Amino acid sequence: IPSTEFEKTRRLLGNDIQETMFYFQAQLEDLKKKLGEGSPLATQVEQILDEGIDRIRVSQHDLRILSDLDGLNLWREKEAVELSELIQKRLHKLQNPPDCSKARKLICNLNKGCGYGCQIHHAVYCFIVAYGAKRTLILRSKNWRYDKNGWEDVFQPLSETCTDTAASSFSHWPGAENTQAVELPIVDTLSHRPPILPPAIPKDISERLIRFHGNPTVWWVGQFLKYMLRFQPKTQAMIDSMKESMGFKTPVVGIHIRRTDKVGTEAAFHSVEEYMERAEEYYKLVSLSNPNVVRRVYIASDDPKVITEARNKFPNYTIYGDPNVSKTAAVSTRYTDASLRGIIADIYFLSLSDYLVCTFSSQVCRLAYEILQTFHPDGADRFRSLDDIYYYGGQNPHNQRARFPHTAKRSNEMSLKVGDFVGVAGNHWDGFSKGFNRRSKQTGLYPSYKAEETVEVANIASYADFDKNET
Amino acid sequence: IPSTEFEKTRRLLGNDIQETMFYFQAQLEDLKKKLGEGSPLATQVEQILDEGIDRIRVSQHDLRILSDLDGLNLWREKEAVELSELIQKRLHKLQNPPDCSKARKLICNLNKGCGYGCQIHHAVYCFIVAYGAKRTLILRSKNWRYDKNGWEDVFQPLSETCTDTAASSFSHWPGAENTQAVELPIVDTLSHRPPILPPAIPKDISERLIRFHGNPTVWWVGQFLKYMLRFQPKTQAMIDSMKESMGFKTPVVGIHIRRTDKVGTEAAFHSVEEYMERAEEYYKLVSLSNPNVVRRVYIASDDPKVITEARNKFPNYTIYGDPNVSKTAAVSTRYTDASLRGIIADIYFLSLSDYLVCTFSSQVCRLAYEILQTFHPDGADRFRSLDDIYYYGGQNPHNQRARFPHTAKRSNEMSLKVGDFVGVAGNHWDGFSKGFNRRSKQTGLYPSYKAEETVEVANIASYADFDKNET
Ligand SMILES: Nc1nc2c(ncn2[C@@H]2O[C@H](COP(=O)(O)OP(=O)(O)O)[C@@H](O)[C@H]2O)c(=O)[nH]1
Ligand SMILES: Nc1nc2c(ncn2[C@@H]2O[C@H](COP(=O)(O)OP(=O)(O)O)[C@@H](O)[C@H]2O)c(=O)[nH]1
Repeated sequence: IPSTEFEKTRRLLGNDIQETMFYFQAQLEDLKKKLGEGSPLATQVEQILDEGIDRIRVSQHDLRILSDLDGLNLWREKEAVELSELIQKRLHKLQNPPDCSKARKLICNLNKGCGYGCQIHHAVYCFIVAYGAKRTLILRSKNWRYDKNGWEDVFQPLSETCTDTAASSFSHWPGAENTQAVELPIVDTLSHRPPILPPAIPKDISERLIRFHGNPTVWWVGQFLKYMLRFQPKTQAMIDSMKESMGFKTPVVGIHIRRTDKVGTEAAFHSVEEYMERAEEYYKLVSLSNPNVVRRVYIASDDPKVITEARNKFPNYTIYGDPNVSKTAAVSTRYTDASLRGIIADIYFLSLSDYLVCTFSSQVCRLAYEILQTFHPDGADRFRSLDDIYYYGGQNPHNQRARFPHTAKRSNEMSLKVGDFVGVAGNHWDGFSKGFNRRSKQTGLYPSYKAEETVEVANIASYADFDKNET
Repeated sequence: IPSTEFEKTRRLLGNDIQETMFYFQAQLEDLKKKLGEGSPLATQVEQILDEGIDRIRVSQHDLRILSDLDGLNLWREKEAVELSELIQKRLHKLQNPPDCSKARKLICNLNKGCGYGCQIHHAVYCFIVAYGAKRTLILRSKNWRYDKNGWEDVFQPLSETCTDTAASSFSHWPGAENTQAVELPIVDTLSHRPPILPPAIPKDISERLIRFHGNPTVWWVGQFLKYMLRFQPKTQAMIDSMKESMGFKTPVVGIHIRRTDKVGTEAAFHSVEEYMERAEEYYKLVSLSNPNVVRRVYIASDDPKVITEARNKFPNYTIYGDPNVSKTAAVSTRYTDASLRGIIADIYFLSLSDYLVCTFSSQVCRLAYEILQTFHPDGADRFRSLDDIYYYGGQNPHNQRARFPHTAKRSNEMSLKVGDFVGVAGNHWDGFSKGFNRRSKQTGLYPSYKAEETVEVANIASYADFDKNET
């Protein structure tokens, strides 16, 4: 068993290298522009950038090899499997009380007025709160906007024994310890926020989880999705047949291009080229160990044009994706059975990819990223977001802690003292992040590498009684 | 016990990071010059360089921490100590035959017509050849140009039992197996070159040595120096008193500034600033774990002015070094007893440093680097040369092997195929090395990170009989 410090440092080093790459990319691109595209000096800057990134990429490559050689991968895999099994067992027990008529329940309505990703996240939020309160989650899904037959039309029920809202006493959240059924509002209007809300993870598994995973929150969320999103046989059959007709193979990069109603309202427009550039970067890294790697991407989008556009512009890529699925995602046909099947499949295939390129402003891609964690011991680094950092909608503040001091060098920067806690607003993916220094009360940019993630730990009810082996 | 591949990859990664740094430093300095010192864009380039290097340095720092945390340092230290003990025991046995009158001898004359470093390297070459031939080295040192009383005036004799050249049969190298005494010429005129000449290391220890050391050749040479340069009590007393009067403390960077007769003939001039800049780089790295580190350098030089110059220009540094020692190194007084004591002390203190900054064109600094290895499990990276890469005078070709393919991008570059062997001429410390591609017969530059060191292994006489434990 490696020390937590060893695993943390290994991940920090990966992060350092990535941040160095972001920094030089952004700065030299900026310099190139100022020198005037095509000028001899701009051409020189372009060469420096190319050759410099080649060098940084080799560090990424050798760090991967080092991790493969340190003899700990078996442990990493085993630990991830075992912890997942523990949580799945607990969720199964929580959801299948011996006597539903006496079970303490948390009632939640799937039908939040938003898209599929948003609704699933709402359900997961309910499930996490239910876990923290040790209540069985009852998910109301009749007249689901995506499928009037409800949840069980596509996914297995959350319980084999207890899906009934009936109870001897009802209350709104938080209720009392002995209120049998408590109804949870959407997170946006929640008061009495429980400590278990993301990004917190439960204390009793925190040590193990922090050791093997680079983003404990997303792993933890992924565990609820793993339990919740168990396909019905006909959903599985649909997925299997899509997989076969595509000839889906790995390695593959999952690309999610969110357009239509999102662009200009909640997110900026990003061209197909921007996404493909990041996929190409990933393949350049893979090429160092596998020079003949076939370049495949799976493209999911609510805009059918982008798949055709990518196929035309990137003929050296194998491009999976079905414009007809995208068509059903149009705002006018979005809340239909067909559209539901499309988004389920798209998210599933995105989550199967080796690397995700997308905008984390979209719940679709965050969902895929969360599910992706269930397929890898530590999939924390398997993404490139074109905008936000990963977050969970409605989450508690996300803090980093300064590793190194920083003296502001530009007017939009802020200074850091070692140990400062910084509420993170975002990573600009150019070597700098934006945040709020809780000590100095300043808001500003700081070099991302100078701060490291902290993990919030929630001290909730013990599950020791659940972990006992019974038949 | 770690796998050799793990240790190699860890060192490769360190090298990748260093090469990235060299590349950006050289390229952005060049760009800055072209943009015109002081212009707004040049200032921007300077900031990119500073901030970019800060990021790369953190990778170096975290890789060091990772190595400290991987739990293998105890093994690394033990392995280095044990292998050194094995070699020292063999050398002791080789040099102390039970009956000198019957011992097979290799006779060598210390008085090569050159400086101390060159002469010591000559003696080590003799010693290595003696080891390969399993002959006792007899070192003639009467009328040594540095001390007419010879070797034993400052160092312990190479043997307690056998320093006599007398023999029943004599021959010039290579002689016959049963020739009792063979006389070895200087390497410059050697024919019948034995396979054990540097950079080769003996096969029977190669696996262990390659595993724990980043530069097996220099470790191997260091072992001969460890045996040879055992001080006489009065030499030790002199060193001890110098140490005390200086108040010598670590961490310290050793700087050797070779001037006088070398400059313009065998090496280029380098300013005090160039050396100090590299020391400062080292201290910036150390500062990441020890922000209050006291900056110390030990300066050795044959020019007394540089020590005073450094003290004036770098008041924030503690500068060890004695201009009076440098004075004795002037060409006119170089071959004197006083000068000998000075160069012995200078080399010793340089070898005690944590990091060496010097020109490897000078035998003085190469010698210090070799001896430094005896104080660290793996001191291969503890240097920065302003000119040559490390080499052993008169050595056999030094090869690298291409890890990655390269397509020449500039007229002075050459292409590489994976697996190509390249005879290395030098590293330009700017991300590129110069070499001769043995497959394509081309000479040219190539990105240093694209090739890795090879180690030559010599299959010489077995020492298994020497390793048996007797009393
Ligand atoms: N099939 C499919 N539907 C999509 C895609 N992107 C968006 N949609 C549809 O648009 C909805 C967007 O709402 P939501 O999931 O909350 O994500 P967000 O609005 O992007 O944060 C999805 O749930 C889908 O119904 C896609 O790539 N494929
Ligand atoms: N004390 C002292 N002597 C030096 C120093 N640098 C050069 N010398 C003298 O100059 C000689 C140089 O000859 P050699 O050792 O062969 O080295 P190289 O000529 O620099 O390759 C040394 O042996 C010393 O006698 C120095 O830093 N300190």
